[in-house]
Amino acid sequence: MDFISQEEAGGGYRWRNIPYDPLFSGASFHVLCGYRMQLGREWKNQSVRTHYARLYYVEEGEAVLEFDDEVLRLRPGYLYLIPSNVFHRHRCEESITLMWCHFRAEMHDGIGLFEMLRVPRELKVESRQEVESNFRELLAAMEVHSGWGELKRTQQLLGLLMPFLAADSDSLLRHDRASYLPVFRYLDSHLHEGLGLDVLAEQMGLSPEHFCRVFKRDFQVTPMRYVMRRRVHLAQQLLCQTNLKHYDISDRCGFSDTYHFSKVFKQMVGVTPSAYRGQHVS
Amino acid sequence: MDFISQEEAGGGYRWRNIPYDPLFSGASFHVLCGYRMQLGREWKNQSVRTHYARLYYVEEGEAVLEFDDEVLRLRPGYLYLIPSNVFHRHRCEESITLMWCHFRAEMHDGIGLFEMLRVPRELKVESRQEVESNFRELLAAMEVHSGWGELKRTQQLLGLLMPFLAADSDSLLRHDRASYLPVFRYLDSHLHEGLGLDVLAEQMGLSPEHFCRVFKRDFQVTPMRYVMRRRVHLAQQLLCQTNLKHYDISDRCGFSDTYHFSKVFKQMVGVTPSAYRGQHVS
Repeated sequence: MDFISQEEAGGGYRWRNIPYDPLFSGASFHVLCGYRMQLGREWKNQSVRTHYARLYYVEEGEAVLEFDDEVLRLRPGYLYLIPSNVFHRHRCEESITLMWCHFRAEMHDGIGLFEMLRVPRELKVESRQEVESNFRELLAAMEVHSGWGELKRTQQLLGLLMPFLAADSDSLLRHDRASYLPVFRYLDSHLHEGLGLDVLAEQMGLSPEHFCRVFKRDFQVTPMRYVMRRRVHLAQQLLCQTNLKHYDISDRCGFSDTYHFSKVFKQMVGVTPSAYRGQHVS
Repeated sequence: MDFISQEEAGGGYRWRNIPYDPLFSGASFHVLCGYRMQLGREWKNQSVRTHYARLYYVEEGEAVLEFDDEVLRLRPGYLYLIPSNVFHRHRCEESITLMWCHFRAEMHDGIGLFEMLRVPRELKVESRQEVESNFRELLAAMEVHSGWGELKRTQQLLGLLMPFLAADSDSLLRHDRASYLPVFRYLDSHLHEGLGLDVLAEQMGLSPEHFCRVFKRDFQVTPMRYVMRRRVHLAQQLLCQTNLKHYDISDRCGFSDTYHFSKVFKQMVGVTPSAYRGQHVS
């Protein structure tokens, strides 16, 4: 990645600026809720998938966390990360004391950070004292309903998430993300149109088959599924921030019709567009 | 501010979600550069105003920082915050050792966080050791050109900025920001149109004069100046993320013509739209 510019101050001091990272600059975070709880055998769920991600820290006790491809035994002194939109279920056989939070971590395009990256789901913490103090500060900031509280929660959340990224930072760098920039740029300005795999592949000079394969390898999602997520994300913004009618939003986001819009939206977000607007607009 | 929803998990555990904060959720951060430097008498600048904000921490020595309405003497053990788009100048009479960084802190609408808030420009740090370690980690992360580096810098930057917000968190809460939501929502969907003060005032049921007065009191900027900033911010995004021509961008952002677009853009960003695109698109 190149430095985009060099600047100079009075006295001839020079410095170089770091360019915006095409995927991570403009990432945003929001903690929905967080608690410390002692849970018993009644803590048991059928398979669920949520639009938010989850972070658990085990203080004491045990429980079982199952993914479709992996079974984890929750243990004291470990952190667990459940990305958004991933099916999982849990059960507790005796008791467990957890600090936990639900959060959204999104890249500039609204795609869940941990959906895009292959990070570990379980991590032994280096210092229990440090992580517990970090988590406690996050929970304390839940009580502060102000801009300060919002930013404080983001700071504490980042502190808890960084080790997951550091632990596997190779995977963040595995592909040259910059090579996908023409695709992301094209998407940004053509999302409202009917977009085919061929026109996306063309932006990188690849055949549709080859493009689909490398995209899926690098982002763990097919290009057309990614396009749908982008459309839904845009729709979420328009639902919250405007008074536009559903058919207008459907149109601006490139859905073929409002029926298709509602169906895809419900599938990805878990609620209908109307319910979503109702929840986010007071 | 109300909680938007209550959720329930297996076993009957209940929790409440914190709603998105209309201004602070989706805030994003980007550190452009950061260094530790020993500076001498040659560190001297004419009055400058930049599109990024600055943070200084003084380790040793002294210098003078002048704003249009205030003169500060930079002192060891203090942090200094210069918001974006604020005229200032500095001079050093002997020598000074600084840790400093340039950064952008933007609310979801692209407006500089510290342009909107009245926070102190000078702050005595509680623990020099802690702040120095925080700043050192920020500087170390400048060398890491990856998503991890980007997020680590954000985490460290937030750590350094929080005391500025906490110190004056009353000012964050001074006005009920939620009451402005209809205005911000209206803006989001009508930015490309010719917008008058009267139509914005109408969203809050106020007279144009009254609206202008309270808006300026609460955001330290007139409503029409705010609209221009939003237009320029949208133009910046379109310049970076699309191949749209200037006249198209000018049109989509609600400028009356490309001449007006270029003039306002240059005035606010410091460079022409073409130069800006050149810097940000590799």
